[in-house]
Amino acid sequence: MTTSHMIFDEWSDLYADRVHTMKRSAVRDLFAAASRSDIISLSGGMPDIRNLPLDIVADIASAAVTDQGVSALQYGSTIGRLDTREAICDYLVEDGIVAKPEQMILTSGSQQALDLIAKTFINPGDMIITEGPTYVSALQAFSAYQPQVCAIDLDEEGIRVDLVEAELKKHGRGGCKFIYTIPNFHNPTGITMSLARRRRLVELAREYGTILIEDNPYGQLRYTGEKVPAMRSMDDHVIYLGTVSKIFAPGLRVGWILAPKPILDQINLVKQGTDLCGSALNQVIVEHYFTTTDWRSIIASLIEVYKPRREAMLAALEEYFPPEATWTHPEGGFFVWVTLPRYLDTDELLPLALDKGVTYVPGKGCYPDGRGVSSMRIAFCYEQPEAIEEAIRRLAKVIEERMELYRAFIKAGLLEG
Amino acid sequence: MTTSHMIFDEWSDLYADRVHTMKRSAVRDLFAAASRSDIISLSGGMPDIRNLPLDIVADIASAAVTDQGVSALQYGSTIGRLDTREAICDYLVEDGIVAKPEQMILTSGSQQALDLIAKTFINPGDMIITEGPTYVSALQAFSAYQPQVCAIDLDEEGIRVDLVEAELKKHGRGGCKFIYTIPNFHNPTGITMSLARRRRLVELAREYGTILIEDNPYGQLRYTGEKVPAMRSMDDHVIYLGTVSKIFAPGLRVGWILAPKPILDQINLVKQGTDLCGSALNQVIVEHYFTTTDWRSIIASLIEVYKPRREAMLAALEEYFPPEATWTHPEGGFFVWVTLPRYLDTDELLPLALDKGVTYVPGKGCYPDGRGVSSMRIAFCYEQPEAIEEAIRRLAKVIEERMELYRAFIKAGLLEG
Repeated sequence: MTTSHMIFDEWSDLYADRVHTMKRSAVRDLFAAASRSDIISLSGGMPDIRNLPLDIVADIASAAVTDQGVSALQYGSTIGRLDTREAICDYLVEDGIVAKPEQMILTSGSQQALDLIAKTFINPGDMIITEGPTYVSALQAFSAYQPQVCAIDLDEEGIRVDLVEAELKKHGRGGCKFIYTIPNFHNPTGITMSLARRRRLVELAREYGTILIEDNPYGQLRYTGEKVPAMRSMDDHVIYLGTVSKIFAPGLRVGWILAPKPILDQINLVKQGTDLCGSALNQVIVEHYFTTTDWRSIIASLIEVYKPRREAMLAALEEYFPPEATWTHPEGGFFVWVTLPRYLDTDELLPLALDKGVTYVPGKGCYPDGRGVSSMRIAFCYEQPEAIEEAIRRLAKVIEERMELYRAFIKAGLLEG
Repeated sequence: MTTSHMIFDEWSDLYADRVHTMKRSAVRDLFAAASRSDIISLSGGMPDIRNLPLDIVADIASAAVTDQGVSALQYGSTIGRLDTREAICDYLVEDGIVAKPEQMILTSGSQQALDLIAKTFINPGDMIITEGPTYVSALQAFSAYQPQVCAIDLDEEGIRVDLVEAELKKHGRGGCKFIYTIPNFHNPTGITMSLARRRRLVELAREYGTILIEDNPYGQLRYTGEKVPAMRSMDDHVIYLGTVSKIFAPGLRVGWILAPKPILDQINLVKQGTDLCGSALNQVIVEHYFTTTDWRSIIASLIEVYKPRREAMLAALEEYFPPEATWTHPEGGFFVWVTLPRYLDTDELLPLALDKGVTYVPGKGCYPDGRGVSSMRIAFCYEQPEAIEEAIRRLAKVIEERMELYRAFIKAGLLEG
């Protein structure tokens, strides 16, 4: 129950149906908790901005106004500044992605991209496919347009393409509006999709006349292993989403959608009514980031920050977590996905963890259908290695205590084993 | 027909129903034309940014990063920075609006406010009331959620409240989701709603259990006459929209919604899925604008810029336009609304005007129902007085030539008089 339902609301009859199916984001609410100074946050996917060269960014921001103020402070085009789109297209070439600026629209972070795509494609009741689990706020964006979400299991190679195919076959050609995937260091599991799976997914999308959406916020943040080619590099029908939120600054709210021109035109039309245009000033700042800073070394320094944090988390899990727990071993990104014995409920554990000064994301919010009860997403992006180790130690204690309680109940005949 | 329909689009079966009812914004397309250097633009509602003190703004932007970079570049709360909301609440006190920061959510310009409100309230087929004509892009924002829009005529005192009452009565209590109005220097007509009308509208919203939305982007830009109190100052159930786009910089995309707390909570939930949060950096810049600059004198200097442009436009209309044309006499804002003889179609005149190097907004796009064919919105905000006079002279010529042609047709018996 949300706060707004607990107080008298004389307007409640006026709300649209869609608001009644929306869930508050547990992650967003945890962001609030994470700002308590005594809390070690394993919940938010917030980059550690403290490592950005603020002096350089301040100069960029000032230069953006001084040099291009008349246009940077003015309304811009809905599609976004051409210079910025060109700079991003150049940046994408290193990932094997060849795109023209007219195939790109700038968005207010990737979150707006998800909203615009959902708004462009989803009628109430339409079927879409996502990974299961998937990004909490993607589910939130999509749910506003009331689709049927089919969340397909992942294994260590990423989304189970055999299950995707079975689902597509069941609904027939054109029966699925889109397939939404995060192939690199997936949110929330950290899993990277194998090359073979990527190829198959591209084929399946073609075969069944659906759209493949490749969301890649974390791709640059690889700490081990080999890069896997983007699906967009295999087929330019793929809709590709990117953002500067993890490699520069989420506070700018600059992301992008690459899409085939006819789809991009529709998204552009949808965006007109949604916000007219993005912030020209922030688009200029992003352009300067890619054209005037040594962004490669900024990203390299971010990797140096996150890499030991990942190692600290994996080592601490190994040391402190009970043998009944399993977890993923991400090669990059921000997240590890932990699965506990099925009799444990991570929603119920959360207040106990908060009591011990630790936050995480319970798994249930990452599914559209109630799965994920015994799982949790833990992020290693925001805290120092020592704090991460301490948090995992505390979490392990919460889990162990709960498991002991459970075993005592079974012994006393109060629960079945 | 949009460009995207004219080329082969293999995805067209996948689009949601809502995109088929969306219209491209004529204004947005005209923004593109207006960037041609030989064009005098009477179309866009773009503030004249060339008059902003860019050095001060550059300093603010730089200081925002240097002093508050770690939070200004980070994800923020969905509702927006508290300090910024406090600064805006202080700013609103001068308009007699008493609001607490927890009643305010920051948006990506007022356009996002319109989208979020529509998304929160409108089911397909729901009835809403607007002024007729109304803001083109408000219709665009609302239409994505497929309402029935009832556009009520204005006279020189603003929206005809007798017609509003008749419509509300017809649909019964709760039968109208909201009434959307722009009471000050209305877009597109420039008309200001009288005090008596405002009072009656507030009463009617209460009586019929509907929500009154007061959109006030231009309120500070008054060149003559006396300020009229905001409806929000009469009743805090009114949803009030504001923006820095006309008094500072649209390129920041910072607007706000004031709403009763339960409604604000719903809008906040809707916004989570739409974009997670706005740009913290731009919110800090806006906070600094209100707390560290002499914003009153910046606005006063903007008034000095726009006031002679309004006078130039009204004088030129008087001098050059045919006696058959009528137009409004705005006391502030950016726009004059011209109505030509009913046998003239301003959509058809537009290419002729463009030929002569002048753009305007045809009236039809400002109605949901095909009215406005013989009207046009002309803006005096963006060009110098001399250019405005020249543009009106050219427009008058286009109109006169068309009228002559019409009279010749009648004389030749090819048309009825």
